[in-house]
Amino acid sequence: MKSFEAYKEILESYIQKEIPKISPKELYEPYLYLIDLPSKRIRPVMLMSVYECYRPLENHVLNCAMAIEFFHNFTLMHDDIMDASDTRRGLPTVHKKFNENSAILSGDVLLIITYQLLENLLETKYFKEIFKLYNHTAIQICSGQQLDMNFENEYTITELEYLMMIEYKTAVLLATSFKIGAILGEATPQDADAFYQFGLNIGMAFQIQDDLLDSFGSTEQTGKVVGGDICNNKKTLLMIKALQSNNRYHKELLNNWLQTKSFDEQKVTDIKQIFKDSGALDYTIQKRDAYCEKAISFLNKINIQHEDKEALIQFAKKSIQRVS
Amino acid sequence: MKSFEAYKEILESYIQKEIPKISPKELYEPYLYLIDLPSKRIRPVMLMSVYECYRPLENHVLNCAMAIEFFHNFTLMHDDIMDASDTRRGLPTVHKKFNENSAILSGDVLLIITYQLLENLLETKYFKEIFKLYNHTAIQICSGQQLDMNFENEYTITELEYLMMIEYKTAVLLATSFKIGAILGEATPQDADAFYQFGLNIGMAFQIQDDLLDSFGSTEQTGKVVGGDICNNKKTLLMIKALQSNNRYHKELLNNWLQTKSFDEQKVTDIKQIFKDSGALDYTIQKRDAYCEKAISFLNKINIQHEDKEALIQFAKKSIQRVS
Repeated sequence: MKSFEAYKEILESYIQKEIPKISPKELYEPYLYLIDLPSKRIRPVMLMSVYECYRPLENHVLNCAMAIEFFHNFTLMHDDIMDASDTRRGLPTVHKKFNENSAILSGDVLLIITYQLLENLLETKYFKEIFKLYNHTAIQICSGQQLDMNFENEYTITELEYLMMIEYKTAVLLATSFKIGAILGEATPQDADAFYQFGLNIGMAFQIQDDLLDSFGSTEQTGKVVGGDICNNKKTLLMIKALQSNNRYHKELLNNWLQTKSFDEQKVTDIKQIFKDSGALDYTIQKRDAYCEKAISFLNKINIQHEDKEALIQFAKKSIQRVS
Repeated sequence: MKSFEAYKEILESYIQKEIPKISPKELYEPYLYLIDLPSKRIRPVMLMSVYECYRPLENHVLNCAMAIEFFHNFTLMHDDIMDASDTRRGLPTVHKKFNENSAILSGDVLLIITYQLLENLLETKYFKEIFKLYNHTAIQICSGQQLDMNFENEYTITELEYLMMIEYKTAVLLATSFKIGAILGEATPQDADAFYQFGLNIGMAFQIQDDLLDSFGSTEQTGKVVGGDICNNKKTLLMIKALQSNNRYHKELLNNWLQTKSFDEQKVTDIKQIFKDSGALDYTIQKRDAYCEKAISFLNKINIQHEDKEALIQFAKKSIQRVS
């Protein structure tokens, strides 16, 4: 296995060279713009890394990695419209830079392009399995986005409902990236499934870390305003646990603040304090770490070289320590 | 071959029984609503009819017919947002009945469902060919929709540009429906290609007839307000040819009317008269009939039973005489 940075570079040049430009330009310019924004390319890099645990990279694997990355970008493009997000990584989102119609149609064509990229797998014996997994995952991701939108208008979300939402919306695509890398690399079915579980549990830890950073990170770390989720009354695990507090003072203060949605520094300060005092912060950190440990336990079952395993464990650990 | 009505009934019950309901309900209710609206189901019915020119219906063919119909509905759902259309067949469009986010996400999941339906073909030896054709067509349809949107803001559209737009936006999906029916039925590659051309040319005639009805049909016939395209300054073939008129009076009157977009009975009357006097109407009718004849000439090359061929010729002829 090469360094993750090396895979990212390989992928970036492959994308530059191979990305299809579907005419007219109004169709391809929006997706080129989005795909060109700075990105860690975590999903395709993991797919490529796992594949190289087994055998040297080939073009059909790169095409598949590109499909996963483009699928992720398709979801970003449409989710940003639905969530009315104006910026992504400090730059205008597609529907702001172009317009809403462009973001809808360019997103649609990008989704179809991902299927066209899968044509490169048609000659492998793994096409059927990967095609079914890909469709299944794509549908789960739509369900996750719908659940996320539904939760905005619901007051009581259980921890279980929240975990199911982030599993669908975030974790399954990372899990699928790992598993496809393993399937293409001809891992045993048991090892491919263990890679799926590794990715799924890292994905969960990753999203919980994201929620933690939103409230307890700093703007220097994340590049985002601290407390965005708090101001928007977002039902993260922190909030769900805080709302379960039996402390009457916590309850009253929370209920008061949840009446409004505007940005308010006092609200952020108050609610962060409740997160700490109610034990919600500790609980959330423990939950994140438990997912990370569970991920590593799955990885430990997999029959790959020691140094590859070490690199993936470092990736798992970094994903919960990351600051942006 | 059964009657087209019989295929429609078979398909309707199959859809009722087999349509996947992806939870949560906010995800599936919008596409169930749209698919339940009255529809002729022309594309899947043609796929099934062509298949039965060769062999008796099977479930994987019905699944494929369903995929084509759902793909068509996915495009309707997203196009209606982009075109800001409030009604479809006299009822609210999805983004009006539900909301825009629902129409985006439910459309996305419907597109993915179509790929999941194609999984039923994985065990046939035709999967590769059909998968590639399906992706290629899907991308062309997005290009067609983008061209159509682009044309709204352009004054000079050539006849060739217009024909390319309707080929992509409308004709290729009908062509693909015919061809997939033929491929699955194990027609020779030549006959499958001839079926594609048959469908493509009917599709062109069909769309031109649509444009003719918009200006020269009656509300009783079409259920639509007469002159919608005229009021919206739509660059149909009628308008493109009228704009090419050398008659100075036609030129001036057209240019005057094209300054405004609001509904105006005098505008409809004036422009319909120009369509007639400039020869644009005759030209458009000839063009429509030429596509129909070309379609039939492709059909005549195909090796199927005489009565099946006759039924398809009747379908072609009806598609240019249809009034709604």
